[in-house]
Amino acid sequence: MTPKNIKIQCPLPHATEDTIRLAHGGGGHLMQTLIHEIFLQAFSNPFLNSLQDGAVLPSQDGHLVMTTDSYVVHPLFFPGGDIGSLAVHGTINDLAMMGANPLYLSAGFILEEGLSIDTLKRVVSSMAKTAQACGVHIVCGDTKVVDRGKGDQIFINTTGLGVIPSSVDIGPHRITPGDRMILSGDLGRHGMAVLSKREGLTFSGDIASDSAPLHDVVMDLIGRGLSIHCLRDLTRGGLASALNELASTAQVSMTIDESQIPVSESVRGACEILGLDPLYVANEGRCVLFLPLADVDKALSILQSHAISALAVEIGEAHPLSSNHTAQVILRTPYGTHRILELLSGDQLPRIC
Amino acid sequence: MTPKNIKIQCPLPHATEDTIRLAHGGGGHLMQTLIHEIFLQAFSNPFLNSLQDGAVLPSQDGHLVMTTDSYVVHPLFFPGGDIGSLAVHGTINDLAMMGANPLYLSAGFILEEGLSIDTLKRVVSSMAKTAQACGVHIVCGDTKVVDRGKGDQIFINTTGLGVIPSSVDIGPHRITPGDRMILSGDLGRHGMAVLSKREGLTFSGDIASDSAPLHDVVMDLIGRGLSIHCLRDLTRGGLASALNELASTAQVSMTIDESQIPVSESVRGACEILGLDPLYVANEGRCVLFLPLADVDKALSILQSHAISALAVEIGEAHPLSSNHTAQVILRTPYGTHRILELLSGDQLPRIC
Repeated sequence: MTPKNIKIQCPLPHATEDTIRLAHGGGGHLMQTLIHEIFLQAFSNPFLNSLQDGAVLPSQDGHLVMTTDSYVVHPLFFPGGDIGSLAVHGTINDLAMMGANPLYLSAGFILEEGLSIDTLKRVVSSMAKTAQACGVHIVCGDTKVVDRGKGDQIFINTTGLGVIPSSVDIGPHRITPGDRMILSGDLGRHGMAVLSKREGLTFSGDIASDSAPLHDVVMDLIGRGLSIHCLRDLTRGGLASALNELASTAQVSMTIDESQIPVSESVRGACEILGLDPLYVANEGRCVLFLPLADVDKALSILQSHAISALAVEIGEAHPLSSNHTAQVILRTPYGTHRILELLSGDQLPRIC
Repeated sequence: MTPKNIKIQCPLPHATEDTIRLAHGGGGHLMQTLIHEIFLQAFSNPFLNSLQDGAVLPSQDGHLVMTTDSYVVHPLFFPGGDIGSLAVHGTINDLAMMGANPLYLSAGFILEEGLSIDTLKRVVSSMAKTAQACGVHIVCGDTKVVDRGKGDQIFINTTGLGVIPSSVDIGPHRITPGDRMILSGDLGRHGMAVLSKREGLTFSGDIASDSAPLHDVVMDLIGRGLSIHCLRDLTRGGLASALNELASTAQVSMTIDESQIPVSESVRGACEILGLDPLYVANEGRCVLFLPLADVDKALSILQSHAISALAVEIGEAHPLSSNHTAQVILRTPYGTHRILELLSGDQLPRIC
């Protein structure tokens, strides 16, 4: 049932096909053509090329980390990325947030009948380039085709496998009052880039997605012995949602300084026009770090030495539960006032990842 | 971005929601409600419950095997199974076909806006029961919601992780002329069960899907020291497609006896009415085994001792490439004639898995 479950030498009777048909998911010649001409050519590696029901991977020292995400972003292509690069970055970042070194990805495609083969090729090519740049192998995959009107061009699931040294212990359980919080960069670019492309909006200043892999800088921080307590990427729901989740899980309160949070002028302007709050807009290459005060300066210098986190800044601290024993996230405004950052009911922007 | 990326204690402001809304995928309260009330309750296990970006798994001896499949079966519920049980069986079987013992699954859900929560609960409950019965943990997951008309109720991706002892080497590369072929059971029930339900057809005799997990019987065969050369489950494209793929990969020809292939009366009748060939119809609990003559009797007795493969039978053998040096799959008919089983261009039945 995987696309590797196919023969190596196959005739290509439909090489001129220019759109996806239901038969491309049927397990016959057409599916083999698709897999050989598009997927195997793009993703080729020893694990995938063995063409079996699964990929055989070497045993690993240390703990395995497994994570999964489906990508349904609309539109497929947006400034700064596309569903293919996003499907690699997003899953790699989930592994990185665990302190894991990403090694392998699976790729599950759900294609809509009538999809242009050229569009599929563009997405797959972007996915392959991104995986190569990130040093991960796409080791197994699957393709399904659904009837016209029962999907939306392309959905992609990537499941990631990584390894963490047994010594590394990063997670919400390690957040303690007194921990300082570092934000790795400016907020809101991914969500606003997708939204502006989807709605055909033009804002002063181009807004490109921040979609990027965080594993290199995380591995650098860990390798240099920093005592990182917790990492969290700022995707659906943005910084405000991530902090609310972590505060509740760790049973602490948090205070952040609004004036410290980098937001580009173009994102700020676009959010004001649309009535959106950058603190709730999704990012795909941003994270928040929790660590003891003693490590803040060293962490900042390491973060700022990587392009992806050049704007890293300390934004606040964790402290004991508030007097009413609830885990609150408090925003200190530039005017010295305080307001509670609530968790939204839903999301400001659907289908941004 | 995974559903574990949420807080443990969360208010449930929308517990009365009876359909999926876009906001259920938004990373806020609604998504947390969905995850806590449905997914965590059903799938609860130590790996999933840690509520982090990924699941931390123990290191494993032996080789890891990773496989992925998306499930888009229509309708969601059919005689003998549903998309939830199928999403567990299908991926477990891909691992089993590698000789791997299935350990962990990820679960990625793509839900269509407007989906009934009760329908989702039924699918998730079936998935959880099936995973428990198969002895695998669903260790991480993700939920996305797409707008009405951009999906089809529920799509599920499961990615599986298993382990094979370094000593086990099962695959097409080990198929050699002289190998005997064993079919593990009767053909065509899954495809015909889904089709009859989808089209509202009634046939004499109920046709229930053969969807079932093959790992127990495979582990039994391996544990008893049988020299299995290759295993392949008979999903999209059925037995005929699987044999064509294997013949081409292994560069051998194969001959099978039509009279030996078990097909139930009801499946045979339904196929005749619809002009379908049971040899090309998808199965979800059937496989073909390649092994040396010396092991055939022992393999048959072990297979027949398991309910899932009680009808196991030897159906043919592999032999050198035919005179024109092509890898052919030849069917020996009850009348003594021979015909070549070709690989279809597409598939007889779309969206059966």
